[in-house]
Amino acid sequence: MRNKIITFGEMMMRLSPPNFQRFEQAHSLEVIFGGCESNVAVALANWGLYAAHITRFPANPLGNSALQFLQRQGLDTCFIQLKGERLGLYFLENGVAMRSGRIVYDRYRSAFAEIEVGSFDWEQIFEGATWFHWSGITPALSQNCAEECKRALAVAQKKNLFISADIYYRSNLWKYGKRPSEVMPELVQYCDLVLANEQNMEEIFGIGIENVENSFLISCKKMKEKFPQISKIVDTERISISASHNQIRAKLFNGTDLFITDYQDIDPIVDRIGGGDAFMAGLIYGLSTYKDDQKALDFGICASALKHTIEGDANLISVAEVENLVRGDHSGRLRR
Amino acid sequence: MRNKIITFGEMMMRLSPPNFQRFEQAHSLEVIFGGCESNVAVALANWGLYAAHITRFPANPLGNSALQFLQRQGLDTCFIQLKGERLGLYFLENGVAMRSGRIVYDRYRSAFAEIEVGSFDWEQIFEGATWFHWSGITPALSQNCAEECKRALAVAQKKNLFISADIYYRSNLWKYGKRPSEVMPELVQYCDLVLANEQNMEEIFGIGIENVENSFLISCKKMKEKFPQISKIVDTERISISASHNQIRAKLFNGTDLFITDYQDIDPIVDRIGGGDAFMAGLIYGLSTYKDDQKALDFGICASALKHTIEGDANLISVAEVENLVRGDHSGRLRR
Amino acid sequence: MRNKIITFGEMMMRLSPPNFQRFEQAHSLEVIFGGCESNVAVALANWGLYAAHITRFPANPLGNSALQFLQRQGLDTCFIQLKGERLGLYFLENGVAMRSGRIVYDRYRSAFAEIEVGSFDWEQIFEGATWFHWSGITPALSQNCAEECKRALAVAQKKNLFISADIYYRSNLWKYGKRPSEVMPELVQYCDLVLANEQNMEEIFGIGIENVENSFLISCKKMKEKFPQISKIVDTERISISASHNQIRAKLFNGTDLFITDYQDIDPIVDRIGGGDAFMAGLIYGLSTYKDDQKALDFGICASALKHTIEGDANLISVAEVENLVRGDHSGRLRR
Amino acid sequence: MRNKIITFGEMMMRLSPPNFQRFEQAHSLEVIFGGCESNVAVALANWGLYAAHITRFPANPLGNSALQFLQRQGLDTCFIQLKGERLGLYFLENGVAMRSGRIVYDRYRSAFAEIEVGSFDWEQIFEGATWFHWSGITPALSQNCAEECKRALAVAQKKNLFISADIYYRSNLWKYGKRPSEVMPELVQYCDLVLANEQNMEEIFGIGIENVENSFLISCKKMKEKFPQISKIVDTERISISASHNQIRAKLFNGTDLFITDYQDIDPIVDRIGGGDAFMAGLIYGLSTYKDDQKALDFGICASALKHTIEGDANLISVAEVENLVRGDHSGRLRR
Amino acid sequence: MRNKIITFGEMMMRLSPPNFQRFEQAHSLEVIFGGCESNVAVALANWGLYAAHITRFPANPLGNSALQFLQRQGLDTCFIQLKGERLGLYFLENGVAMRSGRIVYDRYRSAFAEIEVGSFDWEQIFEGATWFHWSGITPALSQNCAEECKRALAVAQKKNLFISADIYYRSNLWKYGKRPSEVMPELVQYCDLVLANEQNMEEIFGIGIENVENSFLISCKKMKEKFPQISKIVDTERISISASHNQIRAKLFNGTDLFITDYQDIDPIVDRIGGGDAFMAGLIYGLSTYKDDQKALDFGICASALKHTIEGDANLISVAEVENLVRGDHSGRLRR
Amino acid sequence: MRNKIITFGEMMMRLSPPNFQRFEQAHSLEVIFGGCESNVAVALANWGLYAAHITRFPANPLGNSALQFLQRQGLDTCFIQLKGERLGLYFLENGVAMRSGRIVYDRYRSAFAEIEVGSFDWEQIFEGATWFHWSGITPALSQNCAEECKRALAVAQKKNLFISADIYYRSNLWKYGKRPSEVMPELVQYCDLVLANEQNMEEIFGIGIENVENSFLISCKKMKEKFPQISKIVDTERISISASHNQIRAKLFNGTDLFITDYQDIDPIVDRIGGGDAFMAGLIYGLSTYKDDQKALDFGICASALKHTIEGDANLISVAEVENLVRGDHSGRLRR
Repeated sequence: MRNKIITFGEMMMRLSPPNFQRFEQAHSLEVIFGGCESNVAVALANWGLYAAHITRFPANPLGNSALQFLQRQGLDTCFIQLKGERLGLYFLENGVAMRSGRIVYDRYRSAFAEIEVGSFDWEQIFEGATWFHWSGITPALSQNCAEECKRALAVAQKKNLFISADIYYRSNLWKYGKRPSEVMPELVQYCDLVLANEQNMEEIFGIGIENVENSFLISCKKMKEKFPQISKIVDTERISISASHNQIRAKLFNGTDLFITDYQDIDPIVDRIGGGDAFMAGLIYGLSTYKDDQKALDFGICASALKHTIEGDANLISVAEVENLVRGDHSGRLRR
Repeated sequence: MRNKIITFGEMMMRLSPPNFQRFEQAHSLEVIFGGCESNVAVALANWGLYAAHITRFPANPLGNSALQFLQRQGLDTCFIQLKGERLGLYFLENGVAMRSGRIVYDRYRSAFAEIEVGSFDWEQIFEGATWFHWSGITPALSQNCAEECKRALAVAQKKNLFISADIYYRSNLWKYGKRPSEVMPELVQYCDLVLANEQNMEEIFGIGIENVENSFLISCKKMKEKFPQISKIVDTERISISASHNQIRAKLFNGTDLFITDYQDIDPIVDRIGGGDAFMAGLIYGLSTYKDDQKALDFGICASALKHTIEGDANLISVAEVENLVRGDHSGRLRR
Repeated sequence: MRNKIITFGEMMMRLSPPNFQRFEQAHSLEVIFGGCESNVAVALANWGLYAAHITRFPANPLGNSALQFLQRQGLDTCFIQLKGERLGLYFLENGVAMRSGRIVYDRYRSAFAEIEVGSFDWEQIFEGATWFHWSGITPALSQNCAEECKRALAVAQKKNLFISADIYYRSNLWKYGKRPSEVMPELVQYCDLVLANEQNMEEIFGIGIENVENSFLISCKKMKEKFPQISKIVDTERISISASHNQIRAKLFNGTDLFITDYQDIDPIVDRIGGGDAFMAGLIYGLSTYKDDQKALDFGICASALKHTIEGDANLISVAEVENLVRGDHSGRLRR
Repeated sequence: MRNKIITFGEMMMRLSPPNFQRFEQAHSLEVIFGGCESNVAVALANWGLYAAHITRFPANPLGNSALQFLQRQGLDTCFIQLKGERLGLYFLENGVAMRSGRIVYDRYRSAFAEIEVGSFDWEQIFEGATWFHWSGITPALSQNCAEECKRALAVAQKKNLFISADIYYRSNLWKYGKRPSEVMPELVQYCDLVLANEQNMEEIFGIGIENVENSFLISCKKMKEKFPQISKIVDTERISISASHNQIRAKLFNGTDLFITDYQDIDPIVDRIGGGDAFMAGLIYGLSTYKDDQKALDFGICASALKHTIEGDANLISVAEVENLVRGDHSGRLRR
Repeated sequence: MRNKIITFGEMMMRLSPPNFQRFEQAHSLEVIFGGCESNVAVALANWGLYAAHITRFPANPLGNSALQFLQRQGLDTCFIQLKGERLGLYFLENGVAMRSGRIVYDRYRSAFAEIEVGSFDWEQIFEGATWFHWSGITPALSQNCAEECKRALAVAQKKNLFISADIYYRSNLWKYGKRPSEVMPELVQYCDLVLANEQNMEEIFGIGIENVENSFLISCKKMKEKFPQISKIVDTERISISASHNQIRAKLFNGTDLFITDYQDIDPIVDRIGGGDAFMAGLIYGLSTYKDDQKALDFGICASALKHTIEGDANLISVAEVENLVRGDHSGRLRR
Repeated sequence: MRNKIITFGEMMMRLSPPNFQRFEQAHSLEVIFGGCESNVAVALANWGLYAAHITRFPANPLGNSALQFLQRQGLDTCFIQLKGERLGLYFLENGVAMRSGRIVYDRYRSAFAEIEVGSFDWEQIFEGATWFHWSGITPALSQNCAEECKRALAVAQKKNLFISADIYYRSNLWKYGKRPSEVMPELVQYCDLVLANEQNMEEIFGIGIENVENSFLISCKKMKEKFPQISKIVDTERISISASHNQIRAKLFNGTDLFITDYQDIDPIVDRIGGGDAFMAGLIYGLSTYKDDQKALDFGICASALKHTIEGDANLISVAEVENLVRGDHSGRLRR
């Protein structure tokens, strides 16, 4: 049976100066759309899976542009709502060499952040679906987002979907009065797969970090005890030689074993935004396709590495290209 | 003595698709900065007058870019505050032929809209100044903006500045609970010169429109009775043959006489945003320079017409170019 | 019941120099996709109707880009085939003032031209559909295209779809050995609505032109005698003052009466490609919506006029914008 | 026998802001090459005549780019010298509507202005040539340029070339100490055809203007008396409705008769630089081809009109396009 | 005596997305022209040698643009034919980091592929020429191309030209029914210098590869036995660390000795298309200039390395720049 | 007390092809402004110091653009003169990999080079100032520039400003008849801090280089003997692996000790122009802020390294970004 993946979260308009310009130098900004969860859906649709993204855009030309972006990528957009005041925005300045990139978020009171609880008919949305993916950004945006997230999770679990979460934590996102530790545990208990590192597990769930070599493994085991529903915990590691040159690898704990990939060397980086989402999409694809944790993890990290060569949040890489890299060919030889 | 003009109001980042693209076609947006009041200050500084603009931008790279835009134009920016959450934005799609342009405002809770009452030290700001210009947009943005506007006006009057106002009225701007008729009369009573048409005077001040040929004159006389401080009322008229071809003229009532300019024919229009502000700047320049209402009005309408040939809100036209048009030369002959 | 429109024909990649450059000046070419029939479908989908386009693209990145273009516009693309050697191309140089635009076609042996007879399952495609639109370009491309067209028409008629055709005739398109007069009559007999002028009717169907004022009406009556299935014949007239300034109007003969619209004045023209297709889409929308020939015709010509202000073949204009022009507002005033 | 045309003069790099930007708004400048005389040669080469341009460029990458520009257009460039300090430059800001364009020249001490007298081997250059064209700009640049011009003219006359001159006069060009009236008469005496208006003839040759309707004719007759070698005097007239809309016509006096063309209406103008040179090229082409003054003049004015639709100094229009306009077709209809 | 080089083959329009965009992201495509053999001629003309390219372009604006590209570079283009249906195209997507570039060829039934046998007057073309260069692409395009190639070779040999061939082999190019092994041997027997690697020699000429270290040398010796006319066999080796970082070196067998260059490290690569052609051009230049195989080979590999820093197929590098790299200076220090 | 820095020198318009294009490929040139001394002022103003630049621009649109560039960066521009014939220009082609960048200067007889001696009122300019920075370019431009430089230095010393000089030496700059050794010693005697390497000290001041390891130190000591006013001598070293990859470090001799920084690795380089000026600005900032030679030197070299990641001559980097690199973080991690 073909997998049917549902993702839920905000997608923003991204505005970025061309080339390596700083914001203060820019006379035009390039327009791209992206969001942590929709990036996952776009990659999966691109790879031939059925993917539907659930969100809300304002009923104005900007919202319409956002909708068309997702339609173009072949997603099912029939549950997307066109309503509300404004489209979430973010401004991105790319880094290069030792100069860091910068992001200015401007998503305050966006159409998505202001959804009413009960806005979405999750029974209908999850009809026939096999996988639900969400991230820790959504409950950070507003009380309503957090509650709608919980509604979704309850229905997803009831309907036996596999549930994955990117436990994404940026403390300056949480502005409506709640802390992640108050909100996230209740949501994470529904999850089968979680992307998180030791710091996240400590800050959100109070799982102390052991200063030993296999600290990730120890944290994972404690995490699994706390959230028995979780069957897999994954993470990526990034060695940042410069903004233009990174090395990444991934780890997966499946309750018993810890799998680790080789490092992928990325030089130069074209656009690192969405690299984590590409990993998650690759992992979902891999787990759906191979039924082999190591293979899935390899597919994930190679998908992520290749994403760094694509301008924009979305991962416009083919399965064949990822598989080629999994086989070890990073020669970049011209295909005629 | 050299005139010293102070303007007060929000300046936004303007994002517009290049050429005649619609929003949905845009892959990049051109970045320009503009605002009703700062456009006036920019034109005046460009013409050699001392002009200072008073506003607030967020302390982030976008606010910094806005500040640098004003510095570049030679304005005094020393009273501009860098504080607050976000920069006001507006998205502009240019019209062409019979297709209308579109604007999507995104200025909600901008740094300027959220200024605290008492933020600005008007005694210091108005030191040595001769003219204060504001518009009806500012009191529409928030209660605080309205109150700060009143504070400014009281000090300006006390210090004997000449006060001009663009009684700008877009009903969908007023979102914080007050109607213009509750707020504007108190502010307009300080003014010496007002830009308004019959509809504005009716909607905001309850001055009924007479359906006769000289309705503007009649409304002006009633307006002057109601607000005895006002010495001049001005207005522009626009015949819109298409989005690419307009004809404009201006009127001025000085308490006794009504002056009217010839129509200026503009074909094609490059960018009509800021056309009204260019008229106001031209009028201020003209009144400051010529001490002749007809000449000042002619300078104003010609400055406005030339603005339509400039991309962006700001009027980058020289005094000599305006004067040349005032003399009737619209040949556009190449200057070598 | 919501209308469901099916269109069938080739969509090409269009490559055109930016601004008013000639081909020999171009260092880059802008990429847009368009085709006579898909342009109709795109406009109708844009206006909220269900529209599916039937075609074939090569299974390469260029074909994929073409497919994504249609997905983006919200069309149903599930019957589009990805197969064959090459994507049809056309190179467009825009005209301006008295300089004509130029087109270089490069559609020889495209994936669509080389479809096999029987490639498409018309029974399935027309399931639930209400309208089928095709044009005279398709049977001109290859013997197979002509035959597949006939297969489609037979099924469409059987399933009681309303059938419209743009009897498009460019003699240099017919290169595979047949003349339009040998092929078109058999196809046109299935049609309910035909877009054609007197010259087309003479050249293709041998209907002599009377040199009298109402020659169109006379040709239409003869045409209807010859093809009794036809209930409406429509045409547009274009006065070409220059490449930048045209006036257009439309005519419709419904078997009894002749309806004519006012002229729409278009100055300047941004892009006239697809103007006829926009008329056809507008007419289909109008006939589906208003059940009033004059209103439908007005909607059609106004949709066409507005298309001339949009870069690209596709008509990205809203129903409200067309209706506004139908009401006579060509002022192009800014909408805030 | 095929005509072989030699032109002599400076070609500059032209730097202009894109679209309708003012210099102060420009972040990039478009690079084009042009010069009064080379523009004539480029048009003639484009129309299939043999044309060689004689000039000097500096032996640096900018000079090399200039040379490649001429090679691309198919000119014979074998006599061009690569030597000297700097390439002449000019900065052009395009006008639009009633706003005038502006030019900033920066040709001071260019490689061409600093040629040594005797630099060019005119005996060899004129071998087999039939026509020599020069302009009044060259003797304005430097004493050496004026003297080399005279050397060329003497050889050209000796070898029986037909000699044409554009008596171009901009007083601010003459900076080396001589006035045109001291230099030009000696050069003009060699000419067979001169482009000049009454003002030029008065300012340079002291031929008083009669304030009567046929003042041009009277001036021409006096001019011919003074310079008996001259067989034809031509001129163009321009009605400048705005920078975007001009009307032009041309006049030719052949010693007996005065020929005048109809006005050509140009709206919108893409680029008017080189319009006069396109006229001269068209006239040379016409005189070479038709042996009919009226036909040649019509070809000239239509070539000039079409030039206004081309970005850049060079006239990239085909003979067929000019002839089509001569026949009265200014419809700008698309050619497929 | 100055060398006079003749090259023969197809030149295509190349269309590529800007920066590192994928095809599906592109809204414009950059236009460049290139072909295996014309690239060699362009480089040689750029270095001051006399070079003429022989090909056919369609007589349309695209063919005209192709012609002007070659004229600009200073080639003799007088034997190029303007005739036929379409210009060969190829679409290039650049690779970066571990992502491979992609090429989509669209050269089917191009004007060049459809030349008639006997189209070119080789006696006249080779008059005074010293060197003829062709490649294995030409006989792959069509039967006629293969036969015309043979006609050229026979005349070239008769007239004692030095003949070089790039034994270029892409199996998917051969579509007209013949295999390279049926066609190439007859052509290669005329050659003095061949660019080929062991795989080419095996696949085309059946020369088995020995799995030993000096396999190239062994293959060369066998090749020379089979084709006694061949005096030199050359090859390049490429270590592809990624699409952005390559190392290249070259080998030359002169019948007795094997010469090998050092590796050139290229990081980052701007555009690797034409790298092999740049090597061939460098080798031809080197052999013509130095009469020293090692020096010629060094010049070739350094020319090739520098080509990778130039956008486009053509090698716009000076002799001095190549010589500087041959001397070992890869510092890239700014030249003021 | 806040430092107030005065810089004096020419600022030019810089014109450069986009991306990695060569001059001959460029169809547009990017416009940026820069000069050795103004680059220092721009960086310091950007970092919050008071900086005024002293120069002359022509009173034309190009001069006006140059002025606005400096205003935008927040400099005090009130002493800049608008007068003279032309703006100095330079054309820059960026290098990449082993291909060197190229500069073509075109500053001959610029407005600045032609200043009259006594043009600037140094008493007024230096009022309240603490630091004066100049470079060896200014006395190279013209006799008048050299003399005005001396006038400035005398007043600066009298008013107790700290004086720094970049002893910049390019022999081809000195064209007016004097050699640096005739002019520079008299100017350098006023200086407190000098940027120079051993070669400069030998060529300009005749200080012989000892071929020993600590040759810089030995030269410095001799230099200090010769110019007792000098308290610090600084220099930077650059290892140029390629045009895209450099390593830089700095040295400072304070009369007693020699300080050396670590190497900063820069890969890839976006724009190396202004790297030395960024070092000087960083050093001035550091010395003003830290009163610690090593810290100041570290700030300088890190500011310089970061400059290489910014397009344009100006260093648009924040103090926090430099400090972050000083602390050793070259990871380039994204800042959200």
